[in-house]
Amino acid sequence: MAAKFFSEKNLKFLLYDVLDVEKVTQFDYYQDHNKTVFDMVIKSADKLAKDLLWPVFEEMDRNPPTFENGEVRVHPIVQKILKAFGEGGWISSTVPYDLDGEQLPHMIADACQFIFAAANYPASAFPGLSDGAARLIENFGNKELYDVYVPNMRQGLWQGTMALTEPEAGSSLADITIRAVSTGSEYYHITGQKIFISAGDHNAAENIVHLMLAKIDGAPSGVKGISLFVVPKKRLDKAGALVSNDVVTSGMYHKLGYRGCPIVQLSIGDKNNCRGWLVGEPHNGLRYMFQMMNEARIGVGLGATAMATAAYYAALDYARTRRQGRIVSRKDPAQPQVPIIEHADVKRMLLFQRAVVEGSLALLLQCSRFVDLQKVSQDTEKEKYSLLLDLLTPVAKTYPSEMGIQAISQGLQCFGGSGYCDDYPLEQYYRDARIHPIHEGTTGIHGMDLLGRKVTIQNGRAFSLFVDELQDAISKAREIPALGKYAQSLEGALEKLQNVTHHLLSLAQAEGLEPFLADATLYLEMFGIITIAWQWLLQGISVQKALGSDCRKSDVDFYQGKMYTLRYFFGYELPKIKGLIERLMDDDRLTVEMDAGFFND
Amino acid sequence: MAAKFFSEKNLKFLLYDVLDVEKVTQFDYYQDHNKTVFDMVIKSADKLAKDLLWPVFEEMDRNPPTFENGEVRVHPIVQKILKAFGEGGWISSTVPYDLDGEQLPHMIADACQFIFAAANYPASAFPGLSDGAARLIENFGNKELYDVYVPNMRQGLWQGTMALTEPEAGSSLADITIRAVSTGSEYYHITGQKIFISAGDHNAAENIVHLMLAKIDGAPSGVKGISLFVVPKKRLDKAGALVSNDVVTSGMYHKLGYRGCPIVQLSIGDKNNCRGWLVGEPHNGLRYMFQMMNEARIGVGLGATAMATAAYYAALDYARTRRQGRIVSRKDPAQPQVPIIEHADVKRMLLFQRAVVEGSLALLLQCSRFVDLQKVSQDTEKEKYSLLLDLLTPVAKTYPSEMGIQAISQGLQCFGGSGYCDDYPLEQYYRDARIHPIHEGTTGIHGMDLLGRKVTIQNGRAFSLFVDELQDAISKAREIPALGKYAQSLEGALEKLQNVTHHLLSLAQAEGLEPFLADATLYLEMFGIITIAWQWLLQGISVQKALGSDCRKSDVDFYQGKMYTLRYFFGYELPKIKGLIERLMDDDRLTVEMDAGFFND
Repeated sequence: MAAKFFSEKNLKFLLYDVLDVEKVTQFDYYQDHNKTVFDMVIKSADKLAKDLLWPVFEEMDRNPPTFENGEVRVHPIVQKILKAFGEGGWISSTVPYDLDGEQLPHMIADACQFIFAAANYPASAFPGLSDGAARLIENFGNKELYDVYVPNMRQGLWQGTMALTEPEAGSSLADITIRAVSTGSEYYHITGQKIFISAGDHNAAENIVHLMLAKIDGAPSGVKGISLFVVPKKRLDKAGALVSNDVVTSGMYHKLGYRGCPIVQLSIGDKNNCRGWLVGEPHNGLRYMFQMMNEARIGVGLGATAMATAAYYAALDYARTRRQGRIVSRKDPAQPQVPIIEHADVKRMLLFQRAVVEGSLALLLQCSRFVDLQKVSQDTEKEKYSLLLDLLTPVAKTYPSEMGIQAISQGLQCFGGSGYCDDYPLEQYYRDARIHPIHEGTTGIHGMDLLGRKVTIQNGRAFSLFVDELQDAISKAREIPALGKYAQSLEGALEKLQNVTHHLLSLAQAEGLEPFLADATLYLEMFGIITIAWQWLLQGISVQKALGSDCRKSDVDFYQGKMYTLRYFFGYELPKIKGLIERLMDDDRLTVEMDAGFFND
Repeated sequence: MAAKFFSEKNLKFLLYDVLDVEKVTQFDYYQDHNKTVFDMVIKSADKLAKDLLWPVFEEMDRNPPTFENGEVRVHPIVQKILKAFGEGGWISSTVPYDLDGEQLPHMIADACQFIFAAANYPASAFPGLSDGAARLIENFGNKELYDVYVPNMRQGLWQGTMALTEPEAGSSLADITIRAVSTGSEYYHITGQKIFISAGDHNAAENIVHLMLAKIDGAPSGVKGISLFVVPKKRLDKAGALVSNDVVTSGMYHKLGYRGCPIVQLSIGDKNNCRGWLVGEPHNGLRYMFQMMNEARIGVGLGATAMATAAYYAALDYARTRRQGRIVSRKDPAQPQVPIIEHADVKRMLLFQRAVVEGSLALLLQCSRFVDLQKVSQDTEKEKYSLLLDLLTPVAKTYPSEMGIQAISQGLQCFGGSGYCDDYPLEQYYRDARIHPIHEGTTGIHGMDLLGRKVTIQNGRAFSLFVDELQDAISKAREIPALGKYAQSLEGALEKLQNVTHHLLSLAQAEGLEPFLADATLYLEMFGIITIAWQWLLQGISVQKALGSDCRKSDVDFYQGKMYTLRYFFGYELPKIKGLIERLMDDDRLTVEMDAGFFND
C-alpha cells in the first residue's frame, strides 16, 4: 500500500512558511536544531509510518484485540511498534537532553505525531499514551518513581495509561470513589474500579503503568479531594522481579471503531493487594492530571485531523480516477464520462474536507507553537502563551473532532456505494473517528470549559489575547489586495463573537449559570469556525507572500489550491456562524425551562 | 427486549390529528375503511414488529449473510419474515381488492412500514423491495408476466429487486451497458453485470425476480434507450419447474452497516442462457422504473426516520436513567448526581433528535397523504398532488437521510463512551444509517433533481403549489396566539426561499447550468429545513387545538413536549438557513472555476 495519507508539502508549508518553526532555534533551549534536523526528523517519521503503521491499518481493525482468560492480546505488530518507537526516541522526542530525550520543539514532535496518526491512529495511541503518562511522573513524581517507571515507558517496554473514568463517574470526576488507604509505608492500598481505560491492558508490553486518580480516605469531597497515584499492573518485588499488583482486567469493550487499541475495565485491589504510589502532594491529583489531559486533548484534535486527512487523500484519489457522468452543461451521452472531480458538487465536497483538515492542522500546530514559546519565554510572554493555550485547548480538541467526522462522511460520500463497503478505507475512518467527540471530554464538556472557565479566566484576559492575535492577522491581511475581502469578513465575525460573548456574560449576571451555559456547545461551535477562519487567513498571508516571489509551477498549483480552499472556507463555512448567533442571542430559554416529563409520550 | 422503538401516540397524533387520515374514507376507493380498521392494522403491525423483527435486530447484524460457493445465505429468520409478511397481506397492503390486496391508504401502509423499519430496517427491506417490484409488473407488465411473478412475490415466496446500477454506471444511468438481444420469441437474451443489488440473492426465497434496466441492441444512446425487463434468477421450464436462468452472484459486499440485508454483484448471461422479459414498451424503462424509484426514495426517507426514531428512544431511555453530574448552578458534590436528562445540553440533544424524527415523519406521512389524494382525485386536483409529490420526493428522501444521521450521532453522544460500544444499539444505528444518503440516489443527485428538474416543472407550478401549502399553514397559525411568532418566522423563511430560487433561476439564464446547479445540495438543505418547519407549524396547529379542548394529563405532557420541540426547531434549526442563503446568493463561482489540478500537492 503506497497510497498517500498526508501531504508533506502542506505540513512543511505550515511549519516553515506559516509558523516559522526555525525561529524557535534562536532560543537557547532549541539552539542545537535547525531546518536540516527538522527535515530529517520528519523524513524518519514518514518512513516509520510507511514501514510499520500504514501497512497494518486495516489488518489491526479486522483482527481486533481478544480478551480470554483474563488476558488481552493485541495484534503482534503492537510490540514491534512500541519497541521501534522506544528505540527511535519517539516516546521521548520533546523530553530534555538531561532526561535522555531529544529536546525537539513540540511543533516538530506533533508534526510527526500527526504523520503517525494519519497512518494508523489506533496504533499510534500506544506510544502516545506512554509519553503522556511518563511526563506526569517526570514533572510531579519523585526520583524513586521516575527511576522505576519512566525509562521503561520511554523505551517502549512498559505501557502508560491515564486511568480516570469510573462506572459512576464519567464526565463527573468529582464523583470518583476509588479508595487509597495509607499504609504508613511508601505506598497506599488501592481498591475500586475503572472503566474505559485505553491500552489499559495488553500483552505487547511487559507491564502497564496506570496514572490513576483516587481518593485518600478522609479527603475533602469533590474534585478537591482527588489524588494521583502510579498503580502498575505488576510491581517490583524486593528481588527486582515483576509480580502481580492485583489489578485485574474485568472486561474489554467491543467498539464501533478504533479497534486496534483495546479499551478495558479494571478491578483494582479485589484481593486487598494492590499498591499505589502517590504522585506529588495529596489532593492535587486533578491539577497534575490536567497537564496530561490537556496534552491528550490536543492529541485527540491532532488524531482527528490526521484521520480526516488520510480520508481526504483517499477520496481525492478516488475522485480523480473514478469516471461517472458528465458536466451538467455538456450531457451528450456519446461523449466519454468524466472523472468525478470535474463535477462542481464533488469539488465542493473535496474543498470542504481540505478546508477542515488543513485548517485544523494549522490550528493544532499553532497550539504546538504556543507550547514551545511558553517553554522558552519568561514572565508576561510566558503567561500569554499559556493563556492562549488554555483558551484554545477545547477548540483545538473539538473542531477537528466534530468537523473531522463530517469531513470523513463527505469523503465517504465521494465514493458513493463503494464508500459504504470495506473494499475502501472510508468506512473504517468513519467508524474510527466517532470516538473523538467522546474521549478526553465530550463536546458538551468542552463547550462549558470554554465558555464557563476559559473565556472568564483572569477577567477575560485569555479572550483578549485571542482577539489581539486575530486582529494582528487581520491587519496584516488587509495590506494584501487578494486578502482584503477576507480580512474584513473575519473582522466582522470577530466583532460578532465579542458581542455574543458580552451578551452571554451579561446573561450570567442577570439570570445565572444555567441560561449562561445552556448553549455553550453552540458557542464552542461558533468559536471554532472563527478560529479556523483565522488560521486560513494566516495561511493566505503566507501564500500571497510565496506567490509574490519566484515559485515553481508545481508550487503554484498548491498555492492556488490553498487560495480556493480559503475562498471555500470564507464562502461556505464562516457564514454558518449566522445561524449560531441568532440562537445564541435568542431569549427563549427552552432547554433550561423544559420539564424532563415533557419527553413522555 | 421490550424497549420502545417508536411512539404509537405520536404516530396516531400525526395520522388522526394532523393529517386527518379518516377523511380519505369519504372517497369511494377507501370507503370500506374507518378508524377502527386503521387502529387494528397498526396494532397488528406493532405486534409483528415486536414478535418477529425487533428481537433479531442485533442478531442479524452480528450474523450477517455469508457468500460461499456462489450461494448467499441469510439469517434463517428472513424466510419466516417473508412468509409472515406474505401471509399477513403486508406485501399487498395498498394493492386494490381486485388484485387480492388490502386497498389500504398509503398513509396507513406507510405508518406500518415505519413501525417495521424502526424495529429492524434491514429485515423490513426484503418485503419492501418485493412490494415495489411487484407493483412495477402490475402497472406496466402484461398478464402473463403478472401471473407468473406477482402472486409469488406478494405471498413472500419470491424476492423482488430493482437492478439498476452497473460498474461504470452508478449515478449515471445513461451509461448502462447491459445488452438485451431480441430472440424473436417472447423473451430477450440478456448479458452484462449489475452491482449493488439489495437482496439481489439469498436462500430465504425460492426465486429472485430482478426488475432490470438494460439496453436493447440498436436502442438510442443515453437514458432514452433504456428498457425494463423481468430477469429472474430461475425461470420456469415447460413443465413448470424452476430452472437456472444464468444469473450468477459474483460477489457480496461487506458493509459498514445494514448488514442483515445482502447487497450483491450479478453476472448475467455468462453462458448465453439468460432470458429477460420486456416490461411495457421498449425504451420506456426508465420512466417505468422511476415509479419504483420514487416509492423507494420515499421509503428510504421513511426508513431513515424510523431508524433515527428508534435511536432517539434508546437515547431518551438512557438519559432518564443514567445519573451523572449536577445542574451547573447547584454543584455541591455532597448531593446525589442527577439523571443526565436534567442537563440543558442533554435536553438540547434530545430535542434535536425529536425535532428531526417527528418533523421527518410528519413530512413522510404528508407525502403518503398526497399519494392517497392523487389516487382518488381527478384532473387539476390529481395533478396538484402529483406535482407536490414530485417536488417533495428529493426532500423527503434527503432531509431524513442526512439529518437522521446527525440525530443518531447526537443520540450516541448522549451515551458517552457507552454509545461507542456494542453493549448499546447506538453504534449499530450509526453504521446502518450511513447508507441512506447514498442509496436510491445520492444527496448530490437529489439536489440537482430538486433544483434542476422539480422546481422548474411546468414553469415552476410545483413550486407555486408548495408555496401555497405553506402560506395556508401560515395563515391558519397566525390566528393562534401561541403560534403567531412561528407563523411569522416561517413566512420570512419562505420569502427568502422564493428570493433564492428566483436568484438561482436568473443565474441559469445569465451564466448557464453549471453555476446554477453548483450549490444545488445547499439549496436542497435549505429547502428541507423550511419544509420541516412547515411540518412543525402544522403540528403546532393541531397541538393548540387539542390543548384548547379537554385533554388528559398524560396528553398534556405530550403536547407540551411538542410545543417545546417546535420552539426548538424554530430556535435552533430554522436559523441555519441564514448561512445557506449567504452562500447561495454569493457570486463567487469557486467550485465551478477551480481547476482540478489545484488539488495537487
